[in-house]
Amino acid sequence: MKEVMAIVRLNMMNRTKRALADAGITSMHAKECLGRGKGLVEIPILNGAEKRYEEMMDELGSAGRLVPKRMISIIVPNKLVKTVVDTIITVNKTGKSGDGKIFVLPVANAHRVRTGESGDEVLDL
Amino acid sequence: MKEVMAIVRLNMMNRTKRALADAGITSMHAKECLGRGKGLVEIPILNGAEKRYEEMMDELGSAGRLVPKRMISIIVPNKLVKTVVDTIITVNKTGKSGDGKIFVLPVANAHRVRTGESGDEVLDL
Amino acid sequence: MKEVMAIVRLNMMNRTKRALADAGITSMHAKECLGRGKGLVEIPILNGAEKRYEEMMDELGSAGRLVPKRMISIIVPNKLVKTVVDTIITVNKTGKSGDGKIFVLPVANAHRVRTGESGDEVLDL
Repeated sequence: MKEVMAIVRLNMMNRTKRALADAGITSMHAKECLGRGKGLVEIPILNGAEKRYEEMMDELGSAGRLVPKRMISIIVPNKLVKTVVDTIITVNKTGKSGDGKIFVLPVANAHRVRTGESGDEVLDL
Repeated sequence: MKEVMAIVRLNMMNRTKRALADAGITSMHAKECLGRGKGLVEIPILNGAEKRYEEMMDELGSAGRLVPKRMISIIVPNKLVKTVVDTIITVNKTGKSGDGKIFVLPVANAHRVRTGESGDEVLDL
Repeated sequence: MKEVMAIVRLNMMNRTKRALADAGITSMHAKECLGRGKGLVEIPILNGAEKRYEEMMDELGSAGRLVPKRMISIIVPNKLVKTVVDTIITVNKTGKSGDGKIFVLPVANAHRVRTGESGDEVLDL
């Protein structure tokens, strides 16, 4: 059992959800988050920095800027990890910096609250 | 050491916190999230769909709808996982779809920032 | 590969980001969360409890109060876990209750969406 945790662009959320559903994956949860990879300085910030020096220079600082992202978490049996990862990559790949990352974490067990069941069979797949 | 990550109904948060405290578990963190399992189409959406066709049909689409949920995360020593899982199930089980899920994830280590200590003893239990 | 998940004070976020960047760690994501450790009852709540009994006594209840915190998550190769943990502790240690906790979770794999690459090399380090 694995958690596939993907950090993607805000506006890719619906398309990602739909593509996963088409692949038979309907169970998931999502959170707002702020994130950054190595990334590049974004032009609007550079422009802003010219105008509002102090405030924006802070954002240009070495620690970089965290931008709003959406985190999707899907817990699946091991055999479906590749399907989920490939689906998320296919939908979210624009080839530009900021496409996001996918992390795969081990999950020891899952329980369905309604029935008390546990194991792979509670994963709605 | 394990992370017990429970996704429950918004309005069950306080009762869950209280039940965990009664079981001796006071250390936790919580996040808002959106989630869904296999679930069922909810009647208000179906009704809405009749009236505002385009907008609501989108929500009825194959990818399903994510509803607001609360995520509680509790990191405990292995021997307390069962207590925490059982407590959350007991409090949150209504028998209806949407009761939520609990995931158990392995945790390699924990550190208390204030003292720099690490290991099970920082888990406040 | 590990996820270093730190729960720190809201106002320590920028300093933490900067210190991590100085240590060469620029890739991360952050979420708002509510949290508590064993903690102590905070004086403003006690004072409030005298005035608005019912409402505030609820917050003094056995289940404790969750306070707003910031969660930072950084996924790094195993060899950098100590650097990240030590950096976060150094920046966030005030010696007072509420300094936060750091959890280290195993990560099975990471994928960069833009290129489809996977493994340690996608971790931007």
